[in-house]
Amino acid sequence: MSEIAIGIDLGGTQVRAALVSADGRVLARAEDRTDAMAGPERVLAQIQALADGLAAAAGTATVVGIGVSTPGPIDTVSGITRDIPTLAGFADFPLKAELQKRFAFPVSLENDGIAAAIGEWQFGAGRGLENLVYVTVSTGIGGGVIADGRVLRGRKGMAGHVGHMSVMPDGALCPCGNKGCFEAYGSGTAFTRRAQDRAFACTETRLGAGGDVIDSRAVFAAARVGDALANDLIEEEAEILGRGFTSLLHIFSPEIVIMGGGLSHEFERLHPGIQRYITEWAMPAFKDVPVMRAALGQNSGLIGAAALSFLAAEFDFSS
Amino acid sequence: MSEIAIGIDLGGTQVRAALVSADGRVLARAEDRTDAMAGPERVLAQIQALADGLAAAAGTATVVGIGVSTPGPIDTVSGITRDIPTLAGFADFPLKAELQKRFAFPVSLENDGIAAAIGEWQFGAGRGLENLVYVTVSTGIGGGVIADGRVLRGRKGMAGHVGHMSVMPDGALCPCGNKGCFEAYGSGTAFTRRAQDRAFACTETRLGAGGDVIDSRAVFAAARVGDALANDLIEEEAEILGRGFTSLLHIFSPEIVIMGGGLSHEFERLHPGIQRYITEWAMPAFKDVPVMRAALGQNSGLIGAAALSFLAAEFDFSS
Repeated sequence: MSEIAIGIDLGGTQVRAALVSADGRVLARAEDRTDAMAGPERVLAQIQALADGLAAAAGTATVVGIGVSTPGPIDTVSGITRDIPTLAGFADFPLKAELQKRFAFPVSLENDGIAAAIGEWQFGAGRGLENLVYVTVSTGIGGGVIADGRVLRGRKGMAGHVGHMSVMPDGALCPCGNKGCFEAYGSGTAFTRRAQDRAFACTETRLGAGGDVIDSRAVFAAARVGDALANDLIEEEAEILGRGFTSLLHIFSPEIVIMGGGLSHEFERLHPGIQRYITEWAMPAFKDVPVMRAALGQNSGLIGAAALSFLAAEFDFSS
Repeated sequence: MSEIAIGIDLGGTQVRAALVSADGRVLARAEDRTDAMAGPERVLAQIQALADGLAAAAGTATVVGIGVSTPGPIDTVSGITRDIPTLAGFADFPLKAELQKRFAFPVSLENDGIAAAIGEWQFGAGRGLENLVYVTVSTGIGGGVIADGRVLRGRKGMAGHVGHMSVMPDGALCPCGNKGCFEAYGSGTAFTRRAQDRAFACTETRLGAGGDVIDSRAVFAAARVGDALANDLIEEEAEILGRGFTSLLHIFSPEIVIMGGGLSHEFERLHPGIQRYITEWAMPAFKDVPVMRAALGQNSGLIGAAALSFLAAEFDFSS
């Protein structure tokens, strides 16, 4: 009888759920708009409804567990959330215990960056590797690390918040409250903000012409038709990412850096500049490490959450 | 019959050796000035002479192995050095194999930052912990990490080069060739250079008065008698270290950050400023992580190299 797992990606906007086979295929999926202001009871009910629906579709397969990816940093060891900024009412909430009450199979809980790293490691661009760093570049920057063939968790399971390494003393304000974080310069949000500021000060760009919205998609579109400012903005973003990834090479010594998140949709355009920075500036022993695009796209975390259940069933390290 | 190990700390200036008991006590020691320009044969002969002398002093105890800490980054998996900047002739040299030829007991090889982290983990300030980051702040900045109860090694065993995370885009030149590394701002060398520059431009400091040499010792001495510039320089250094350590908290989620190296001699003076930065700027879940001084002082790496032999004998993961 085949084994399957349920993955849940709990986000501030959407709760996404998938039924995942032991070889990482998504067999069924479901999603709901997160009722972010309604409090934990309601959000848990949403998760339960999605998971129960998928479990019913599992047929004769055995559900080995449910893995839940949540915005961090949360303490996945105790399972108690200190706070989830995008969701109301989760201060000091025993998320794991409350989830476990609602399911007959084991519940695993993981910070979202780590869940995505697990997904790419088990079923994506990092399959078969012992060491990788996954970085999501989206509204913010998050990440997760596989080191020496194991998931790097750290105290309270909170390792991998790579978006919050400082890249500029007293720099731009970051949503975390600090100034100068990698996220505050390299995220999609920061990229868009730079584009808006520069376009406003530049008369020779099509960006924002006629009152068009300037978002990251618009910048890449303009670049494709030769807009100089747009191309400069992209090269600058690639350099910021390359510099941040180079720091991560030196710190973790991965075999690969995997880039996911919204900006990875334009990975082909960003990649040469990122890799050029590494080749030029990384220490000699690290120059040959490749950066690759997440193979699972926006599903890295969802599939990784499910993979967590398979790993937990195999090694029994989640409980 | 008791078990002992030999630790070797191979540095650009000195080769230090110690006979270490299974509970981390240094039973005997020996050292020699590194013949840095004479090539590997000569340096290996130095290591062998020191180790043989200590082994002869071991009496009835069993020598379980010899652990060698070297300046990195070197590939400790293959054991072949790509280059050791401070030692001539080590390009593509099979260091581990050549060492092993010379000894009857197992040889372990480790990057120096990782060796020191192991020393502090097994016998020092991080005893009994599952997660720690060790940072040496000296001529340069190096480090090593224990995560989830294991030594973090990464590809080729080169993880932990925390001195080479970028903290300033296009910043000060770093000995590694890049610009803006943590090492280029936070190291003892950078601290001394700032002191020299500022003292030169300041008429109201005793630093450098009468042609006195300005080194880090002089800055701390001047600060103790109320020199305002010296105290400002120290607060700035503490802030730079605090900012770098905060990045490491977010990336690794350790239970503790352990500071070693030359500047840790003035840990008491630097610590309040370092901890203040963390308390103010780390994300809430990381604010309570303490920074402590290396308990083994300048012997973290030496004792860690020996500890490596005990770990290798226990888990057999070095060969």
